Amino acid sequence: MTRSLIVAGCQTGPIQRADGRAQTLDRLIALLEIAAARGAQFAVFPELALTTFFPRWLIENTQELDTFYERAMPNPNCQRLFDRARELRVGFYLGYAELTGEGKRFNTAITVGPDGAILGKYRKVHLPGSLEPRPGNHYQQLEKRYFEYGDGGFQAFRGAAEWGAPIMGMLICNDRRWPEAWRCYALQGMELMVLGYNSAAYDPNGGEAENLEIRTFHSILSAQANAYFNATFAVAVAKAGVEDGAGLIGGSVIVDPNGIILAQAKTLDDEIIIAECDFEKCLQGRGPGKIFDFGFHRRPQHYGRIVEQVGAEPIP
Amino acid sequence: MTRSLIVAGCQTGPIQRADGRAQTLDRLIALLEIAAARGAQFAVFPELALTTFFPRWLIENTQELDTFYERAMPNPNCQRLFDRARELRVGFYLGYAELTGEGKRFNTAITVGPDGAILGKYRKVHLPGSLEPRPGNHYQQLEKRYFEYGDGGFQAFRGAAEWGAPIMGMLICNDRRWPEAWRCYALQGMELMVLGYNSAAYDPNGGEAENLEIRTFHSILSAQANAYFNATFAVAVAKAGVEDGAGLIGGSVIVDPNGIILAQAKTLDDEIIIAECDFEKCLQGRGPGKIFDFGFHRRPQHYGRIVEQVGAEPIP
Repeated sequence: MTRSLIVAGCQTGPIQRADGRAQTLDRLIALLEIAAARGAQFAVFPELALTTFFPRWLIENTQELDTFYERAMPNPNCQRLFDRARELRVGFYLGYAELTGEGKRFNTAITVGPDGAILGKYRKVHLPGSLEPRPGNHYQQLEKRYFEYGDGGFQAFRGAAEWGAPIMGMLICNDRRWPEAWRCYALQGMELMVLGYNSAAYDPNGGEAENLEIRTFHSILSAQANAYFNATFAVAVAKAGVEDGAGLIGGSVIVDPNGIILAQAKTLDDEIIIAECDFEKCLQGRGPGKIFDFGFHRRPQHYGRIVEQVGAEPIP
Repeated sequence: MTRSLIVAGCQTGPIQRADGRAQTLDRLIALLEIAAARGAQFAVFPELALTTFFPRWLIENTQELDTFYERAMPNPNCQRLFDRARELRVGFYLGYAELTGEGKRFNTAITVGPDGAILGKYRKVHLPGSLEPRPGNHYQQLEKRYFEYGDGGFQAFRGAAEWGAPIMGMLICNDRRWPEAWRCYALQGMELMVLGYNSAAYDPNGGEAENLEIRTFHSILSAQANAYFNATFAVAVAKAGVEDGAGLIGGSVIVDPNGIILAQAKTLDDEIIIAECDFEKCLQGRGPGKIFDFGFHRRPQHYGRIVEQVGAEPIP
C-alpha cells in the first residue's frame, strides 16, 4: 500500500497589529479552502499565525501582552478554523502563543488531524532573541522575555491513518537551524517534519552581511540539509513581508528526503505551495545499509560533548 | 591583529591503480607549488590521496592489501612532499590509509604545519560501506572491512601561528554528512574545518535517484549547512573523475561561516581552488547573543537521544 500525503504550505503575508482576529482567521480559512480544492490533505501555517510577531516590541503592560496569547486551543477566537478544516477533512499545523492555566507562556504549535483532533503539540525549545531590549534597536526580538523554553522536548507522533500514518515531528522557526532537534525526531523514525517561522529580513546589528537574500538562503539551506541528513520530508512555512514596519523573509519550501525542493513560495504574501510526500522515499536514505541507516553507521560514543556542554569551550 | 589564512583546496583527478607512488607524489607536489605561487599558506588534499580508492575491490591477499597503507607518516614514499612543503612554508592536510605497529588499520588524515610538523591527526569515525561484498555489485564499498572505526573522536587543534592560530577540525568524506561530528568540533571553538573525500558518483543500488549531479549537490549541501550551523569556515576537497573505471564526484568547495561558497572546483581533474579565511568572520554567527552563541541558546537537556540511542527506534 502506498503511504503518501498531499501537503500544502500555507505561507501568509504580514498580519498587522491593527488586523482583527476575525480578519486573520478569514485569511487562514481562505488558504485552507484553496489548499483543499487543490487536493491537499494537510495544511501548514506559520509560527504565531494568529497575530503580528509581537516580540518585536517591549510591551510592559501585562493586560496588553495577554491579548496576543491563547488560553485554550481551540477557543472561540479560532473555532471556525477547526470547524472548516474538519468539514474539508484537511488537517493543519498552527503556531500560536500559549498561556497556560498556571500562567506559563510558550511559543507553541499543534498538528490537528482531519477529524479536528489534536495529534501533537510542541513548545519551542530554541528561543532566539534576548530577555532585555537591546538599546538603540527600533525593533526588538524578545522571545526570551515573553516565552519560557519549551518543556516537552522533541516528541514524535503519528499522523492520521488516511495520510499514511507518517511519523511526524514539529519545530518552530529558529529550531530549524539546530541539527540536534531534527536528529532527536529522526531517532524516533520521523518521516515528515513540519515547522512555521517568522524570521526577520535583517539583523539590526548584523550590518550588510545580514539581509533578506542571505537570511532566505539560510532558511532554505536549513530545511534542505536537515531533511537530507535525516532522510525525511520537511515543510517550512513563513509569515512573510513587511509587518508593522518590520521585514520578514518568505522562502517557504517543501523538501524531499534527498534535500531537493519540491515546491517553493515566490512571493512575500499569502501563497500556497503544494507537493505529494511518498513516505517510501525516506527509505532511499535510511533503508538497511544505506548512508543514513543510523544503527549501522552512528558512533554515539564520540558525541558526548553534544549533551555534556552547553556553550563552546575553545581549546587553549 | 587580523587573523586570516589563505587556503587552497587541491582537488585531484583520479589516481589509477597502475599509477606509481612517485607519479602520484609528483602530482601532489605540483599542486602544492601552484597553490604556493598563488599565495596559499595551507593546501588541502583529498582522502586517501596517495592511492586509488582501493575499498572498491575485495582484496583477500593481505600482502597485496598492505601495499595501500602507510606504516609511518612521513615515510620514504612521501618524504618529498613534506620536504617541499617545508621549503615553501605551506602546510597541508593529507588523507591516507594507516597501518599501525599493532596491525590496526585506519582511514586517517593529518594536518601538517608550515614547518613540517604534524599539528593534528584524525581517524575516520563514520565508515561507510559494508564488511562483506554486496553480491552483484561490480564495485564495492568495503571501508568497514579494511578499516577500524576511528578511536580518537573529534579533537580540535590549533593551526600555525602564522595562519592566525585558528582552532581547526578534521573530518574524512562520509563524516561530513553527520552534524554530530561538526558540532563536537564547534563545541571546542572550531573556526576552520578541513576534509577530503572520495565519493562515488552513483550508488549501484540507488537507481536513478543517485547520480553525479545529486551526489555533488549532497556533498556541497553538507559543507554549506554544517559551516553555517557552526559558524565556521570549511574546506572540502575531492578526489574526482573516473578512477579504475569507477566514477567519483568533484565539487570541492571553500565555504564561509555564512554557508556561502567562496570557491568551487569546475572540473573532475587536478584543480586548485583558493580563498582567504578571515577568522573574525566567525563572530558574526557565534558572537555574544548571536544566533549560534551556543551557550546562550542550546538546550542539551533535550538532546539525550543523540547519545543514548544508536539507531532509529520508530514510535509505535
